[in-house]
Amino acid sequence: MPIIVQKYGGTSVADGEKIKAAAGRIVAAKEQGYDVLTVVSAMGKTTDALYELANQVTSNPPVRELDMLVATGEQVSIALIAMAIDALGYPVISLLADQVGIRTDTSHGKARILSVQTERIYSEMAKGNIVIVAGFQGVSENDDITTLGRGGSDTTAVALAAALKAARCEIYTDVDGVYTADPRIVPNARKLDAVCHDEMLELSSMGAGVLHSRAVEFAKKYDVPLYVRSSFSDEPGTVICKEVSGMEKVMVRGAAISREDSKVPIIGVPDQPGVAANILQAVTKENICLDMIVQNVGHEGRTDFTFTVARSDLKTTLDVSSTIVEEIGAEGVSADDSIAKLSVVGVGMRSHSGVAARMFSALAARKINIQLISTSEIKISCVIDDDRAEDALRAVHDAFELGEDGTLTV
Amino acid sequence: MPIIVQKYGGTSVADGEKIKAAAGRIVAAKEQGYDVLTVVSAMGKTTDALYELANQVTSNPPVRELDMLVATGEQVSIALIAMAIDALGYPVISLLADQVGIRTDTSHGKARILSVQTERIYSEMAKGNIVIVAGFQGVSENDDITTLGRGGSDTTAVALAAALKAARCEIYTDVDGVYTADPRIVPNARKLDAVCHDEMLELSSMGAGVLHSRAVEFAKKYDVPLYVRSSFSDEPGTVICKEVSGMEKVMVRGAAISREDSKVPIIGVPDQPGVAANILQAVTKENICLDMIVQNVGHEGRTDFTFTVARSDLKTTLDVSSTIVEEIGAEGVSADDSIAKLSVVGVGMRSHSGVAARMFSALAARKINIQLISTSEIKISCVIDDDRAEDALRAVHDAFELGEDGTLTV
Repeated sequence: MPIIVQKYGGTSVADGEKIKAAAGRIVAAKEQGYDVLTVVSAMGKTTDALYELANQVTSNPPVRELDMLVATGEQVSIALIAMAIDALGYPVISLLADQVGIRTDTSHGKARILSVQTERIYSEMAKGNIVIVAGFQGVSENDDITTLGRGGSDTTAVALAAALKAARCEIYTDVDGVYTADPRIVPNARKLDAVCHDEMLELSSMGAGVLHSRAVEFAKKYDVPLYVRSSFSDEPGTVICKEVSGMEKVMVRGAAISREDSKVPIIGVPDQPGVAANILQAVTKENICLDMIVQNVGHEGRTDFTFTVARSDLKTTLDVSSTIVEEIGAEGVSADDSIAKLSVVGVGMRSHSGVAARMFSALAARKINIQLISTSEIKISCVIDDDRAEDALRAVHDAFELGEDGTLTV
Repeated sequence: MPIIVQKYGGTSVADGEKIKAAAGRIVAAKEQGYDVLTVVSAMGKTTDALYELANQVTSNPPVRELDMLVATGEQVSIALIAMAIDALGYPVISLLADQVGIRTDTSHGKARILSVQTERIYSEMAKGNIVIVAGFQGVSENDDITTLGRGGSDTTAVALAAALKAARCEIYTDVDGVYTADPRIVPNARKLDAVCHDEMLELSSMGAGVLHSRAVEFAKKYDVPLYVRSSFSDEPGTVICKEVSGMEKVMVRGAAISREDSKVPIIGVPDQPGVAANILQAVTKENICLDMIVQNVGHEGRTDFTFTVARSDLKTTLDVSSTIVEEIGAEGVSADDSIAKLSVVGVGMRSHSGVAARMFSALAARKINIQLISTSEIKISCVIDDDRAEDALRAVHDAFELGEDGTLTV
């Protein structure tokens, strides 16, 4: 029988009624003639509540024990979903990551899946069982429970779908697909029927996506047909697919803002070879990921060097940078939290010029100042003032005609 | 280093402050020069809350999934205790039943421990780690999570203490030891310094004990020095030990009432060989445990046959009994919920006569009617009217001088 993998997020299993509704949808897939494997996240706000419990005991819990703690959230969900399916009269079994054999590295809290076993799953399916697997967790080589980081259940689902060569992988969530922009900010945002993997990756990496980046990477690498759908409706949702011909006719697929970064300008840097590398090495040695990196053209033997980092890394970044500023004889380092990053994404950019010009004109028309720019093959990002971010998103969304009326094609 | 095993019950880890207090006690044992293994139950009312969650999904959850669900309670506790110990600066690791290798049979919800591995524990202790183990759970040969039934964490602790040949096993709870009778009913009840295994077993089996019966059986079988202590004080508690000389000088160690049984009289039973066996077989075939069984002397070819069962088994018992009553041509079966079982326990009974007489006189003096009597080597139990149970307990407690002033010795 073909296999279908479904994943239900926390809002889709938030209480007894929603768990029963999810169970109904799972057995419906079984009735359609699929072998069904379902990955489940922790109920509603359970994970937050567990972190809060840890916080009552210590402000600095060891990561291994934190994983031991929060992994209980998914264990509760899979047991309850299995009970609800059993109550509907279907054979079912819930399995933890170690029972399936989801092996990860030892990076607690942000572990990466190394391999997935399929024997137990196949043998349960052969018995006729619907298989319910705990998302978000794995087992390290030390036999310890690990977790994959926020949103990691998506990755569990896609990794299992890849290993099982599933016919499809459906991600059930509380929105009904991927939109051209966040509909809470852009009222005429439009649901997309299809997004290609690379576009989704760029959108996910900006925190704009409804999918975990690593899940999209897996789906791309192993060619898993991936769908994002609402668990509260029967709408078809959005398919995340390989790039197919015709897709590049659309200049921009979607636009998004991210408000999780800080800008760190280092001014008066001696304009000599190797200085930029010194700064970058010092920061990345602290496991801090730099995002946009810009160096101005120097004058009078000095230049300015600016980068952005996640706000959560700002304090460490400033500590490290202050030291390096002294060492290299720069004039100083500061930080700016009041920025947002605006991006437009689309594989059409590869073959069409004029995307950047159209974006910058739209911002200029609204008198929105651009502070930094970075581009990739299929994305253009600008750092702008946080106060203007939503206005800027609407302006860009209109400029590329992403709204209900259609999309700018060439 | 000698090993000490401690077990903390749900009330001892009910919130962040209590968890920190328990952590303090655990590291104190480490400081005293022991290798420490601690078994922890689920926090406070967590297990009840998990059963309630299951109830919101289905009224008849599969036992395997129920075990998957409720086992999370102890997992949360061990992670939090480990965090609290880490915060005190001591190396620590929490382990689940499958990580330790606590193997059980497949009787979900009431599994029995078959074997315990010690390799992982020894290797963690060799690294200097305090080891925290989830109580109440095990792993079956099917690699499924099992639970040992209410109070099963006591058994986990004693089984591990036996396997590790621990110097002592301390059960921390919310009372400061074993009493001559329930102090809430008998104000002058006295805490016992020592109780022997057989006495504790009889007290535990009546639901009167602060310890799980199976834990006492393990302690007896493997000669584990077992202590019951309060986690909220530094009182020495009660030691549950081998019977030592001098113990038998005390006629009665303690007294207790149990109110969990029903009396089922079958009247007008044909007084023929094999009839009693028929009745017993029919009931025990339903996995119902009969407690007291009494058959009167027959007259006119008929006799009465009475037994007690747990109230939770009463409905099934009556269904089965009604059928058998017809088959054997008895006159009828009824049921009486309004009974209590009063018992006195003590190894001194083996060598002293007059215990029963003293007990019955005490009841007679208060005009308390005895409905059924059963005796074992070290216990005498009477079924009496539930309304008189507490009065009866105080009467018997006084008759054997169990109160603060001392105990009747011979």
